[in-house]
Amino acid sequence: MMQASEQQLNEARAARAAYRAGEVRPTSGVAHGLVQANLISVPADWAYDVLLYSQRNPKPCPVLEVLDAGATESKLAPGSDLRVDIPRYRVWRDGELAEEVTDASEAWREHPDLVSFLIGCSFTFEAGLVDAGIPVRHADIGRNVPMYRTNRACNPASRLHGEMVVSMRPIAADRVADAVQVSGRYPAVHGAPVHVGDPAGLGIADIMAPEFGDAPEIRDGEVPVFWACGVTPQAAIMASKPPFALTHAPGYMFVTDVPDLAYMV
Amino acid sequence: MMQASEQQLNEARAARAAYRAGEVRPTSGVAHGLVQANLISVPADWAYDVLLYSQRNPKPCPVLEVLDAGATESKLAPGSDLRVDIPRYRVWRDGELAEEVTDASEAWREHPDLVSFLIGCSFTFEAGLVDAGIPVRHADIGRNVPMYRTNRACNPASRLHGEMVVSMRPIAADRVADAVQVSGRYPAVHGAPVHVGDPAGLGIADIMAPEFGDAPEIRDGEVPVFWACGVTPQAAIMASKPPFALTHAPGYMFVTDVPDLAYMV
Repeated sequence: MMQASEQQLNEARAARAAYRAGEVRPTSGVAHGLVQANLISVPADWAYDVLLYSQRNPKPCPVLEVLDAGATESKLAPGSDLRVDIPRYRVWRDGELAEEVTDASEAWREHPDLVSFLIGCSFTFEAGLVDAGIPVRHADIGRNVPMYRTNRACNPASRLHGEMVVSMRPIAADRVADAVQVSGRYPAVHGAPVHVGDPAGLGIADIMAPEFGDAPEIRDGEVPVFWACGVTPQAAIMASKPPFALTHAPGYMFVTDVPDLAYMV
Repeated sequence: MMQASEQQLNEARAARAAYRAGEVRPTSGVAHGLVQANLISVPADWAYDVLLYSQRNPKPCPVLEVLDAGATESKLAPGSDLRVDIPRYRVWRDGELAEEVTDASEAWREHPDLVSFLIGCSFTFEAGLVDAGIPVRHADIGRNVPMYRTNRACNPASRLHGEMVVSMRPIAADRVADAVQVSGRYPAVHGAPVHVGDPAGLGIADIMAPEFGDAPEIRDGEVPVFWACGVTPQAAIMASKPPFALTHAPGYMFVTDVPDLAYMV
């Protein structure tokens, strides 16, 4: 298995420690070259539903790790604590966003049997884009990536259904093919785009008004490129209304110790 | 999604129909260019165990499809019937091979709630090897691929544990790198080899005596190359002793209608 450098590990550990201590900011660009992950934790009774939903929808929901019921330390980051090491969480009740918190300990006390799923994040291939000389606009201008609900239904599984959520990056027309090829080498973190251009084809009425994250900045000669997004499980929560779920807040990810290259084909 | 050609579909349908009618032979080389799959079916109570074991061991257990409890028609082959469309099955009781059958209908009557998992098979990338001019010996000499239990433990999951099973193909030393690269483009069907040369390093005492399939023929200048194998769930059954399981017999796979290219990165 590929190993992270000492400097990368120090950055990742420092970031998790800062979030644990209360710092709150989007994680795009943090610990460059290390994998970041989406989180969804559900009571054990719902674990099979989530795992099956992920298996049937691997592009939006590529599972990197499933923790045992009640476990809070990820193998992707020894010493981590999923209750406190993410900058911002969302608590869901009956499919409604009940609150956002920066410490999920209380949710864990309420549901000590939570099963946590870490799901690949497009921030991973963003490092690959940057390394290939393809600018990542939202990072360059200090914004969160724009994310959109779409009209594309995921494959239902057991009690879960919902639509695919996508993230969007504006890419210069002459670099779109490169962006497809670079991201396509990372199938475990969403892989190649699901849609290039034509937002209306995904049911996106206003590209400037994303449902999650910040508004984009699209320049002349750029094409909106859409990737399946790890926020998709949150759309499934909204549509399917499990009694309880805990997730990260979009753009506020779990920073791991694992190099992106570990997931490159 | 990539589409199979009419000729390929006819071959796949004819093969499944023949197996359904009672024909029994290994499926290597059948319907060239279409995906074949390993089968493991377990009572619904064990489905999460199998799915989690697969998630934690993606190289030997890449899941292509999980059917709903009691379902027998695969989406990968419309009109198929998993009870009868595989040439040979194994029935497992308490971790012991109870019998081999060519029709699994009786097992399904006994356990109508079976959840079936179709798992990627190395026969998929064999087509890629052949297309790259790399001979696949066992197919060329009309034998089943040799498969070995190893000393490499899989990651345990819930009630399942066991060692990795590998398949072996002897490859000319000057084509080993090509074989790695070609198979590496198919991560959903075991991907790149897990081990090249040195059978003892996997705990294989006698390369000529595989636990499953037929003995190999290794020629001068060839290196034994080992890939993670979809028979690994059967090793987990032996080690973990679930009360009941139904699988394909090694080498006798489920032939789908899906082109290999659909799983190429």
